[in-house]
Amino acid sequence: MKTSPDPIAGLSCPIPLSEYPNVLLAHGGGGKLTQQLIEKMFVSGYGNEYLNKLHDGATFSMNGVTLAFSTDSFVVKPIFFPGGDIGELAINGTVNDLAMCGATPLFLSTALILEEGFPMDQLWRVIQSMRRAADRAGVVLCTGDTKVVEKGKGDQIFINTSGIGLIEMNRSVTPQRAEVGDKIIVSGNIGVHGIAIMSVREGLEFETEMRSDTAPLHELVKTMFGASENIHVLRDPTRGGVASALNEIAKAAGVGITLVEEAIPVTDEVQGACEILGLDALYVANEGKLIALVPESEHEAVLAAMREHPLGREAVVIGEVIRDHPGAVVMKTRVGGTRVVDMLSGEQLPRIC
Amino acid sequence: MKTSPDPIAGLSCPIPLSEYPNVLLAHGGGGKLTQQLIEKMFVSGYGNEYLNKLHDGATFSMNGVTLAFSTDSFVVKPIFFPGGDIGELAINGTVNDLAMCGATPLFLSTALILEEGFPMDQLWRVIQSMRRAADRAGVVLCTGDTKVVEKGKGDQIFINTSGIGLIEMNRSVTPQRAEVGDKIIVSGNIGVHGIAIMSVREGLEFETEMRSDTAPLHELVKTMFGASENIHVLRDPTRGGVASALNEIAKAAGVGITLVEEAIPVTDEVQGACEILGLDALYVANEGKLIALVPESEHEAVLAAMREHPLGREAVVIGEVIRDHPGAVVMKTRVGGTRVVDMLSGEQLPRIC
Repeated sequence: MKTSPDPIAGLSCPIPLSEYPNVLLAHGGGGKLTQQLIEKMFVSGYGNEYLNKLHDGATFSMNGVTLAFSTDSFVVKPIFFPGGDIGELAINGTVNDLAMCGATPLFLSTALILEEGFPMDQLWRVIQSMRRAADRAGVVLCTGDTKVVEKGKGDQIFINTSGIGLIEMNRSVTPQRAEVGDKIIVSGNIGVHGIAIMSVREGLEFETEMRSDTAPLHELVKTMFGASENIHVLRDPTRGGVASALNEIAKAAGVGITLVEEAIPVTDEVQGACEILGLDALYVANEGKLIALVPESEHEAVLAAMREHPLGREAVVIGEVIRDHPGAVVMKTRVGGTRVVDMLSGEQLPRIC
Repeated sequence: MKTSPDPIAGLSCPIPLSEYPNVLLAHGGGGKLTQQLIEKMFVSGYGNEYLNKLHDGATFSMNGVTLAFSTDSFVVKPIFFPGGDIGELAINGTVNDLAMCGATPLFLSTALILEEGFPMDQLWRVIQSMRRAADRAGVVLCTGDTKVVEKGKGDQIFINTSGIGLIEMNRSVTPQRAEVGDKIIVSGNIGVHGIAIMSVREGLEFETEMRSDTAPLHELVKTMFGASENIHVLRDPTRGGVASALNEIAKAAGVGITLVEEAIPVTDEVQGACEILGLDALYVANEGKLIALVPESEHEAVLAAMREHPLGREAVVIGEVIRDHPGAVVMKTRVGGTRVVDMLSGEQLPRIC
């Protein structure tokens, strides 16, 4: 029945087995090892024009309708945390991935993997939370699946959400569209979600409670498109934080990115927690923030529109796209020097989303 | 910001907590407890017109294009088994769910949850297998996600696939369309996948190796639609087997179903293994078989078309839809009696898919 040669038969594992014989936590951390796994194993294994874009989701057209399609599994720990829970995170996460493709999120699937013994009332809390988040984001949870694994073979609850969104007006926002001269805007204070999770895990106490910033960003995106038809790139800096997201964009588009340290919005509390925990806020996950790359000529209008929206009030420019050092992100530090902001190389924050 | 009353606020957990305070393996077994969880918790929690159909996937139209959308997580154990592996199963499973909605499968997402320490070369084997299965089924693996959890918090690899398919010619196949007089066709010998998995787990040996029947069924479905425009229901009897699938259909459509025991195709080897393992083949999972409900007047044509296809050669009629005992499945036994074929009440085969 075989009609064409098998494209991957005989290929040996593209990850160097002598170096990484087994999967490490860092392979899921959103940094260098995650990138290596995606590029070497998935892109070469599945290889096709859609996956090669390394975007938050795939986009395609059928009979004149352009859709975005995205998937994400959530394994955050603890499952209930200040400002949210795994259910809300799972809805907002996929809503945001679709929004970052320039799409209006419409339909989501939810697939649960439950550990035997998981309390039924906690499951109900999660379900209620998903419903509320879906209502808030205006998406329909239209299909689902549930599996149960033995005690000790899972961890309470893992949730996959996949989503379909509609892309109107042929908006094309992809990492590849980053252009020299683009201003880099971040929609607000960074590192909040990651620090909220880590605070609970590490038992840190602050004067005011650290709450996750989890939120659906598609309305903010809509507002931004109302201000400019020329937004080049959108990205929600989740795992791996702002630093990893910008590195991915720089590599995808073959451009350089320069950041200004003192322009990067970090609250004193997040900064303090980062110092205690030995973290760098640039690498800490966000779940309700976005990065936008916008031509210089239109960035003021986009910024003004963002600041009118509750989720964009603290929006600021943190840097720009340059011709130098293509593929790399370099930051002008407070003390007047420069340093390379590389992709995260190890495991900073396991199971942050 | 709240504009409408929260529809589920204050509702207490709809699963009786005194009876089921915690999630049991049986809640994922595809039988009565799974059904209770879906109906009481998800349908009431998420409640919307799409989910209420209790189909293998959701269908909806956008700008004149009708799509099917489905999701499934795979936690099968062992991950490599005679006749397939978790990767192939994950592709075929979602391809089949889309096919059972009458759709041509087009795009699949893949989301992996890896356990720290999972061997990289095994991951590569799974990726290759997914690619081959995708090529065979003609679908594109267009977007993905990878998470890693600590050792002991997962089990090697869990895979979620979600898929989008195109429904042509306004074909509507839903469980609700079952009609009195419909013939019930099964595409081949039942129980093969479940027994292949259980044989490995239990160390059973047979004269010929038991191999999973995992296969993509969309081409068989296409052939069937070529023979009849009036196929009422399609279903792939996976978890919970033929018995659970038919019970779901009987309940959804409010009709009775009668089966003829001696017409049900079970090989001697599967029958023998079932006897050793204390299983009933009617409840054992299939991954390359389908059930079709077709009007009496067209069933011969559909059957003939199926038998021309490699995956439908053993297709036979095993029963019909009747007016009596709505919501129930009753079987005429070999010895001339009748017995009710209820939905699986406990956990028969954990982690079969």
